[in-house]
Amino acid sequence: MKKAVVLVSGGMDSATVLAVAADLGFETHTLSFDYGQRHRVELKNAEDVSHSLGAVDHKVVKVDLVAIGGSALTSGVPVPKSAPGTPVLPGMPVTYVPARNTIFLSLALGYAETLGTGDIFIGVNALDYSGYPDCRPEYIESFERMANLALKSTVTGATKVKIHTPLIAMTKGEIVETGMRLGVNFALTISCYDPSPDGVACGMCDSCRLRAKGFAEAGIEDPAMGRG
Amino acid sequence: MKKAVVLVSGGMDSATVLAVAADLGFETHTLSFDYGQRHRVELKNAEDVSHSLGAVDHKVVKVDLVAIGGSALTSGVPVPKSAPGTPVLPGMPVTYVPARNTIFLSLALGYAETLGTGDIFIGVNALDYSGYPDCRPEYIESFERMANLALKSTVTGATKVKIHTPLIAMTKGEIVETGMRLGVNFALTISCYDPSPDGVACGMCDSCRLRAKGFAEAGIEDPAMGRG
Repeated sequence: MKKAVVLVSGGMDSATVLAVAADLGFETHTLSFDYGQRHRVELKNAEDVSHSLGAVDHKVVKVDLVAIGGSALTSGVPVPKSAPGTPVLPGMPVTYVPARNTIFLSLALGYAETLGTGDIFIGVNALDYSGYPDCRPEYIESFERMANLALKSTVTGATKVKIHTPLIAMTKGEIVETGMRLGVNFALTISCYDPSPDGVACGMCDSCRLRAKGFAEAGIEDPAMGRG
Repeated sequence: MKKAVVLVSGGMDSATVLAVAADLGFETHTLSFDYGQRHRVELKNAEDVSHSLGAVDHKVVKVDLVAIGGSALTSGVPVPKSAPGTPVLPGMPVTYVPARNTIFLSLALGYAETLGTGDIFIGVNALDYSGYPDCRPEYIESFERMANLALKSTVTGATKVKIHTPLIAMTKGEIVETGMRLGVNFALTISCYDPSPDGVACGMCDSCRLRAKGFAEAGIEDPAMGRG
């Protein structure tokens, strides 16, 4: 069985990606990051999601992005909020974390090489998203090219790096439908950028509103019931 | 004054790079990593080197590469040693750390964006080195292309990422000569992969032997006197 590293945040997108990877026949090894995020509670969700979808193991790597700064997600800067139902506008919100996907994919790359694989799955989405540059196809393709020059195992030809982005062209509604079809228990996921310490979602940040949009489009009630 | 992030390990190469960046007129912000390396003692050297060469600040970011594994530098696997004077052979030694420069440059990228600059200096060297793939010019060029697609500040045109590699085509002897010319105090640097807890170099690992080769080629006695 071919191994894959799957980046799992605890949110609905990466849970769906994990289900897709498993459905494609990969032995999945999930990877999450304790990076100083204010919504650190998501790491428990990442663990639960990993177990529920048959991941062989789940690893949490610590990387101190608070030291680097530059984001509302790793500092005291308030997360912007709007009334539920307000559309998420394109643009670059203060929740942007400098180089986050590059840092996460780089760590996934090192882990994949240790496991002897080049297959990495990430839940980036370029349609219903907050306008982050490191979610676009041209960025992902460029990262993949770089990665194939970076490793001992790619230079010797033992592996080839492939960054799988099964959600990149889906709407949030399609992500919900795909997850439901593949047996994702969305009750185990959390999307909120600014949840209460015990995991109650705010309902008003970009991430909460995108999640609500997804369930509304799919015509399904969110099983997380305000904790997602 | 234009800012630059300079990756500083505490070794002779990155000290020279820092001197080059300062000589080019950059306001330097040094960055080191506490990644679980067995030669963690180098972080003190990185701090001393940063202060001695006028860095505005020195930041140490924690990133747990022990969790990722795959290297003698982050595990109990012994560091290979040969008698002093034995040439360092090309090939991929067990001291290779999967995706290390990709991880380090990614973190530098995030930090640079927070500082409002795209200038990053790294002491990679493709001539007298241990054969690591992430020290080659084609890798660095590819990383730079990816980086320019990754950030908010590059997408908006506010900055452009430039990965500066002033040592990439130098011999170890030329690195020593350049550093001496620019006022580097090599007594503050340490190269050893496997030093004693109080910083005495082993003299026999690849890194120690490359250092000795550099000073021999330059015809200069190593001022670190067995602690480098």
